[in-house]
Amino acid sequence: MTATKIEAILNPGRMLADGIPFPDYDRARRLADTAEWYGFWADTGQRYEALGEDALSRGDLVSGGEWLWHASLSFHYAQFMWFHEPELREAGQRRKAELYQRAAAYLMPAADRIEVSFDQTTIPGYLRLPVGNGPYPCVLVLGGLESTKEESYLFENMCLRRGLATFAFDGPGQGEMFFDVKLQPDFERYASAVIDDLAARAEIDIDRLGVIGRSLGGHYALRSAAFDSRLRACVAWGAFVDMSDWEGMPPHTRDGFVYVTGKSADEAAQYLPIALDIREILDNVECLTYVLQGAHDRIFSAKQTQLLASALADKTNCELVVEADGDHCCHNMAEVVRPRMADWLSRQLLAI
Amino acid sequence: MTATKIEAILNPGRMLADGIPFPDYDRARRLADTAEWYGFWADTGQRYEALGEDALSRGDLVSGGEWLWHASLSFHYAQFMWFHEPELREAGQRRKAELYQRAAAYLMPAADRIEVSFDQTTIPGYLRLPVGNGPYPCVLVLGGLESTKEESYLFENMCLRRGLATFAFDGPGQGEMFFDVKLQPDFERYASAVIDDLAARAEIDIDRLGVIGRSLGGHYALRSAAFDSRLRACVAWGAFVDMSDWEGMPPHTRDGFVYVTGKSADEAAQYLPIALDIREILDNVECLTYVLQGAHDRIFSAKQTQLLASALADKTNCELVVEADGDHCCHNMAEVVRPRMADWLSRQLLAI
Repeated sequence: MTATKIEAILNPGRMLADGIPFPDYDRARRLADTAEWYGFWADTGQRYEALGEDALSRGDLVSGGEWLWHASLSFHYAQFMWFHEPELREAGQRRKAELYQRAAAYLMPAADRIEVSFDQTTIPGYLRLPVGNGPYPCVLVLGGLESTKEESYLFENMCLRRGLATFAFDGPGQGEMFFDVKLQPDFERYASAVIDDLAARAEIDIDRLGVIGRSLGGHYALRSAAFDSRLRACVAWGAFVDMSDWEGMPPHTRDGFVYVTGKSADEAAQYLPIALDIREILDNVECLTYVLQGAHDRIFSAKQTQLLASALADKTNCELVVEADGDHCCHNMAEVVRPRMADWLSRQLLAI
Repeated sequence: MTATKIEAILNPGRMLADGIPFPDYDRARRLADTAEWYGFWADTGQRYEALGEDALSRGDLVSGGEWLWHASLSFHYAQFMWFHEPELREAGQRRKAELYQRAAAYLMPAADRIEVSFDQTTIPGYLRLPVGNGPYPCVLVLGGLESTKEESYLFENMCLRRGLATFAFDGPGQGEMFFDVKLQPDFERYASAVIDDLAARAEIDIDRLGVIGRSLGGHYALRSAAFDSRLRACVAWGAFVDMSDWEGMPPHTRDGFVYVTGKSADEAAQYLPIALDIREILDNVECLTYVLQGAHDRIFSAKQTQLLASALADKTNCELVVEADGDHCCHNMAEVVRPRMADWLSRQLLAI
């Protein structure tokens, strides 16, 4: 990992809004040698793990849960973009998942792990319920290329405070599922399997279901909404329509896309434009839709926003917001756009 | 304000742990001219105020409350240390207070404004109640030299998640009270007036009352606990015992101490060592006590920690923690020490 690369992946807007404490970010920024990156975050994670276990042993359950969640996030950043040592990367990904799983029962509200059997595999996710009486409207929360169900805790909290249940899960190529199933062209089948599961739960009001996904997850959210009419509201948060930006993407983003296919670089370059293309499908999105793009997105070009705008132009139930100062997913203005998306979701779903 | 001074007061550990979004901190850090400081934060506050009012008008109450709180915090930093233009400083302090007051009803849990009549003045504070059934144990939350009842929202949330009600208020020389009453040598009388008020409220379990104060507030917390035995648990968070560090304090801290006395610099230099001295009183602290000091405190010297240690050495119900890596109030490791203090308070008060 080069110094340039560390600067490129150090995204304070995202890191801090997702829950990395400032002192940890600040220490990572000052690392003398970029080779220290993985070790730094793994050490940080272990420190939080020890704090969390210690707290649990004393009966301090709130701290126990939050420190184990911090530990999970730290291991996320350890393995983040660590392509040159795949075994270490996978170990980090597994630590991230198991630490969150240990935190889950102590989070407020608690996260109940649900494993949905589908095809020959399992879709792992976490259901969280708001205060008050159910059945609750619910939002599916989708990670992207490099984000998983463990990273949306703070955004989920925003939804939960607004009366919405949340279900964050890993789909093909993401987090825990990556080990079983690499990136697929039919993410919507996995989303629908999740919805089938939720439909059978008395605490969920299946008639008030929404979905939000960020980056690649935004693409998946639109795709899922196009195929499953049980989704009544859809937020695409920094999405793209097709892979025509491939050549202009940062190298580490391309590496990430290749990685999650499980294929060689050449094979992936053939596969991805076919697997990730919703141009023909967007017209089928009939639910309420909110699309948030940043004008300064350095991963996806303005062309993607134009594709979204023209595909959704005729729809009266679609809102496209392009933040003039926003970067990819508008992480650099999270304090403005995230509450707005949670507001939009709650306004739509509570009004049904 | 000089560049040196801006660096000295830009305290990211404190700012971010208290709720300043990273992008705002980062923009403040990059200000080209330090003369822009007040205007930058006032503009930031106005932007959040507009966001908050807009959200409220749409019925997005959660965002409305949190953005107005962000606006309040921004105005806090506008006036922070702005001694050379006292009128502007006071205007910022008033904006901070009124913005929080508008946010209060929409915070989660809501903050109920209570005005305690005392002497010829009013002690303003906010009571917040946790989820669940009362009567609740309650923690008095004290600001310090430059922090007020509007800045403890996130720490209060930690207490509230742990089942504790919170009452944050301004005492003499602090926030709103400053306009009426400057720093006094008898802070404990104001704390006791607040306790009298809480004792009359059915939702508060007056037998399970604690206090936490940071910096000068830690000094006040110890002082209050020494005088009022209704306080059953006391946290002094970055406290000092006397003013013997005066000569070594950063100039802006001395300016702050002078300011809150309402006296000339010479008069204040005479008054403060008398008004702020609890050496003779510490022995009267009989409740459970937790003292947190940072070994790298640049405002108060190690002598203050030694004074605390020796005064409390014989007490079995006292815990003194000196964090080897901690700065003033250990703001640089807030993610570790703040949950711990909230844990300690809840463990003590819920066990009574």
